[in-house]
Amino acid sequence: MVLFSGTVDRMIPVGIISSGAVAMGMDVDIYLTFWGLQAFNKKVQEMEPKFSADYADMATMMAQAMQEKNVPSLFETLKQVKELGNVKIHACTMTMDLLGQTKEDFIDLVDDTVGAGEFVSMAKEADFTMFI
Amino acid sequence: MVLFSGTVDRMIPVGIISSGAVAMGMDVDIYLTFWGLQAFNKKVQEMEPKFSADYADMATMMAQAMQEKNVPSLFETLKQVKELGNVKIHACTMTMDLLGQTKEDFIDLVDDTVGAGEFVSMAKEADFTMFI
Amino acid sequence: MVLFSGTVDRMIPVGIISSGAVAMGMDVDIYLTFWGLQAFNKKVQEMEPKFSADYADMATMMAQAMQEKNVPSLFETLKQVKELGNVKIHACTMTMDLLGQTKEDFIDLVDDTVGAGEFVSMAKEADFTMFI
Repeated sequence: MVLFSGTVDRMIPVGIISSGAVAMGMDVDIYLTFWGLQAFNKKVQEMEPKFSADYADMATMMAQAMQEKNVPSLFETLKQVKELGNVKIHACTMTMDLLGQTKEDFIDLVDDTVGAGEFVSMAKEADFTMFI
Repeated sequence: MVLFSGTVDRMIPVGIISSGAVAMGMDVDIYLTFWGLQAFNKKVQEMEPKFSADYADMATMMAQAMQEKNVPSLFETLKQVKELGNVKIHACTMTMDLLGQTKEDFIDLVDDTVGAGEFVSMAKEADFTMFI
Repeated sequence: MVLFSGTVDRMIPVGIISSGAVAMGMDVDIYLTFWGLQAFNKKVQEMEPKFSADYADMATMMAQAMQEKNVPSLFETLKQVKELGNVKIHACTMTMDLLGQTKEDFIDLVDDTVGAGEFVSMAKEADFTMFI
């Protein structure tokens, strides 16, 4: 999976698909790029998570439901699935170079940094790919 | 295909890809989640469809062209392709649990409800996958 | 890859993935549809590129970094990778019909026009697919 987006609504499915895949005994590689990578930035972690602007009219209802049902954040889900299976989280080198960031700028869930060529190799070997 | 989005512009391609796949004799599985699932909610069906906020400047032109050319909605296209081929539409159990919804809340096009594990199995077997 | 989106932030990854794939000796097919196709329209080329509305708070920082580091546009990257490998850019016939456009409305990078059936065949044969 490529996580390009940084809004809560698009991050939640990454956790759900990862859980499902781990339950099926599959390996999971999550490639964080652009806004998706920034969501794992320690500074951004302190900010209020946001929903896609396109669904502003339904966002309050959705946020409320998620709070009531104690839906875990992507970060909590990833922590859990990493203990249960082989889930690797990669940071996109190009985005990091662009913004002058190093691996230390991101939370511990991030395993390593990976460039475009290596990412394409992983995608090629994958059972399925998704750009989220 | 995973239909995550609920805006008209992102829903139209799901219909086009389904038509193309059915014409090629392929089976199609559409997994509705989050905003994409809500678009199949009977109550939301009565609301005015929306375009992505990102393209507000071109949306009027696009909406006008779609009306002039009588572009069918995703729902009309799906009804048609279901008669022509093997097209299955699945609702995401997690989204339904989150919002306290049952299969009866959605229009008849929805065939069944499917959890994350079963979805991952389907994706693994697919010739190609797309997250829309 | 399907390029559906027309915002700078979503177009950049298409260039990066193409570069990576060409470096790995892979063929690349890019299918332009909806807003993604419009970004290749000669008239739209003269307009100011836009970021996704969802990340308005980070867009200025990102745009500044991209200018400082001279990040090439998707169009520059595609011109380059087309010289280095087998990269084909296809325009979606349905979008063109909808808006009454012909191949001449788009910049020279576009190789041909392709319908839904042919697109599905390409996707089926691909090592991996992404809807961006």
